[in-house]
Amino acid sequence: MKAAIVCIGDELMNGSTLNSNSSWIAGEISKYYDLKIKYIETLHDDINIIKYKLSKLLINGCDYIFITGGLGPTHDDITKNALKNFFKSNLILEKKYYDRLISYFGKENTNIGHLKSQAQILECSHPIPNMIGTALGMYIENENTSIFVMPGVPSEMKAMMKNEIIPNYIEKKCKHKIYKKVFLTSGITESKLSNILSDLISLNSDEFKFSFLPNYSGVKFVVLSKNRNKKKYDVLCKDIENIIKSYCYGFDNDTLSGVVGKKMISKKITLSLAESCTGGMISKKITDIPNSSLFFKGSVVAYSNQIKEQILEVPIDILNKYGAVSSEVALIMAEKIKKIFNSDIGVSITGISGPGGGSDKKPVGLVYIAAIYKEFRIVKKFNLLKDRDKNREISSNLALNILRNIVSKKKDLHK
Amino acid sequence: MKAAIVCIGDELMNGSTLNSNSSWIAGEISKYYDLKIKYIETLHDDINIIKYKLSKLLINGCDYIFITGGLGPTHDDITKNALKNFFKSNLILEKKYYDRLISYFGKENTNIGHLKSQAQILECSHPIPNMIGTALGMYIENENTSIFVMPGVPSEMKAMMKNEIIPNYIEKKCKHKIYKKVFLTSGITESKLSNILSDLISLNSDEFKFSFLPNYSGVKFVVLSKNRNKKKYDVLCKDIENIIKSYCYGFDNDTLSGVVGKKMISKKITLSLAESCTGGMISKKITDIPNSSLFFKGSVVAYSNQIKEQILEVPIDILNKYGAVSSEVALIMAEKIKKIFNSDIGVSITGISGPGGGSDKKPVGLVYIAAIYKEFRIVKKFNLLKDRDKNREISSNLALNILRNIVSKKKDLHK
Repeated sequence: MKAAIVCIGDELMNGSTLNSNSSWIAGEISKYYDLKIKYIETLHDDINIIKYKLSKLLINGCDYIFITGGLGPTHDDITKNALKNFFKSNLILEKKYYDRLISYFGKENTNIGHLKSQAQILECSHPIPNMIGTALGMYIENENTSIFVMPGVPSEMKAMMKNEIIPNYIEKKCKHKIYKKVFLTSGITESKLSNILSDLISLNSDEFKFSFLPNYSGVKFVVLSKNRNKKKYDVLCKDIENIIKSYCYGFDNDTLSGVVGKKMISKKITLSLAESCTGGMISKKITDIPNSSLFFKGSVVAYSNQIKEQILEVPIDILNKYGAVSSEVALIMAEKIKKIFNSDIGVSITGISGPGGGSDKKPVGLVYIAAIYKEFRIVKKFNLLKDRDKNREISSNLALNILRNIVSKKKDLHK
Repeated sequence: MKAAIVCIGDELMNGSTLNSNSSWIAGEISKYYDLKIKYIETLHDDINIIKYKLSKLLINGCDYIFITGGLGPTHDDITKNALKNFFKSNLILEKKYYDRLISYFGKENTNIGHLKSQAQILECSHPIPNMIGTALGMYIENENTSIFVMPGVPSEMKAMMKNEIIPNYIEKKCKHKIYKKVFLTSGITESKLSNILSDLISLNSDEFKFSFLPNYSGVKFVVLSKNRNKKKYDVLCKDIENIIKSYCYGFDNDTLSGVVGKKMISKKITLSLAESCTGGMISKKITDIPNSSLFFKGSVVAYSNQIKEQILEVPIDILNKYGAVSSEVALIMAEKIKKIFNSDIGVSITGISGPGGGSDKKPVGLVYIAAIYKEFRIVKKFNLLKDRDKNREISSNLALNILRNIVSKKKDLHK
């Protein structure tokens, strides 16, 4: 079965808004074995363009069409009008839903006309409830094509997909999910990873699809099965895991901070951080995880030397002698945060993210990361890039990876 | 002139990777008055599909085609082959570029075959240098169409666009930029903003295009001029600014933290933060800004009551009596962080982000934000959502907005 994803909105066509909806929908529906995504398109808020594209997709035999955007109450939201026109169907008011909106918002505080338009759907459609926003979604069955029309607000669209469309429409027809595994690696380049896997890939490329996706936390390696031979798929994945085991920190939707957090919770190790150049980013990544309070005590963001000296108790003569960006200061920061916060592990980071602050001896991109755990003391030096955002992103991931290595090797550390 | 953006990659079609390239390119080229983006499409790594789409875009009279993705060294990167096939052109080695790659990476540490493929371009194309990655870009002139082929790695693509394609190819033909202004608001809903602007919009919709873009930091209101009447455009923007002045915190690419930072630097006010539920996110947003060290001293992320008591000196009886999530504790946290870090302003946040930790009396989404500046003390209570990520995002923006109001009203505060 063929699927198309169509995202509508001038704000998407002119780049004012990042189109994250098509990637998200693609990720969800590409899990189904019988469903192939053939088209992902972005369209202007233009009635004729929408009608033309819809007719094309129907002629091309799409079984599923997912449309988002243009259902809002303002003048530039014209998707419903385009569909009304295309299907020659009137708008009708979903009375029960409308009453719910009115009772929720109150007649005084709101624009009644707007609420009414949000509760209107095409006569030829079935309503898809919007549990977290106002605009109703629509399901239209057109000969052999199922058309889903959703709001462009990502959270509303996602809730409709998860709670209504996937269970009630997709999973009834598409029974099997594709075998797919994402191997998340760090500490290896795309090119090297591809080298060490090249034999395995060339031997198996008839039955499996492989891809490499590099980003600032490492390289993702994706393995998709082209058939439904589960046994062979499992064996292959085991083989891959063995080959790249020292680089692979997790699978699928794991995150580096999530993996670290899980290990720390299971091993009952607590953590505190002293952040300088990352300015809270590592703490943010760690507290992205629910339950992080089970192992994370907190951190000090020491964005000035005064705080390094006063709160983190780095002696002023050490700061003066070696500079704030040095292995000596990094180690003391890690030691002190561990002591002050009374945690098992103390991790620190100090560096020059840029654009300012660099010198010949200490250029932008210079970063020191230190970690203290029992008798184990580590400090690592990195020379990263010239770009502030990337340096912060990369160095926070490097720190998490060092932390991961420490908590993974707990036993070795006791030697 | 018509433009098309084509992003190639199975990882985009199956949602493994968020396609941010098309939005970014769209944002850049939609600035030019003579250039209209007609097509934004995503394609599989499939030679036939790529060839078919390219022929369609040429038939439809596109003047500019921007292609990204599939130039990497691995087996699934087939864009160059598709183009070679389509244009019936051989691949040639750019010797000078190849030598540069070899001398940079060294012959030992790399896959020579990969590097060679990265330095090959179509004979019918001009090379576009890649200053931060390995794959060369290509410029192909086909009758009246300019085709640009770039790597899919966002930073490499952006550097090529900014340093080569826009100055050397786009700006030579497209002289005029569109008049566009984005008004960034906070503290008002899309529907209310649309209401207070409705007269102005209906009076001006022939000559201007208006759109509302809501997100978790507020609603963006975008005004585009359909013609080149600069005077009228300036007058309209001034009118809008007057109408929405109390909600508008900035324009275009401003960020809430950037606006706050600029104000604090110019007024020489320093800041420290005590973060609980946001776990470092506010600090991270503030240190996203270059030069934040000029006003930001640092923060304590107090993710456990122990740290609130020990480091932030919140008395244990207050913690026990009112609970960590209370206006009393928020105020003490703000007061203490200001004192300990010796900053002009102390801001604190304590709340329940979820998914765990909520109760009937203190549900998930309950957040207190406090700020202390001279004799001025403020604490605000919010009841947000049930979703952890959104709560953290919204509450960190609320804190920044409170901070903005404080630093904007400096004079009033002295009364």
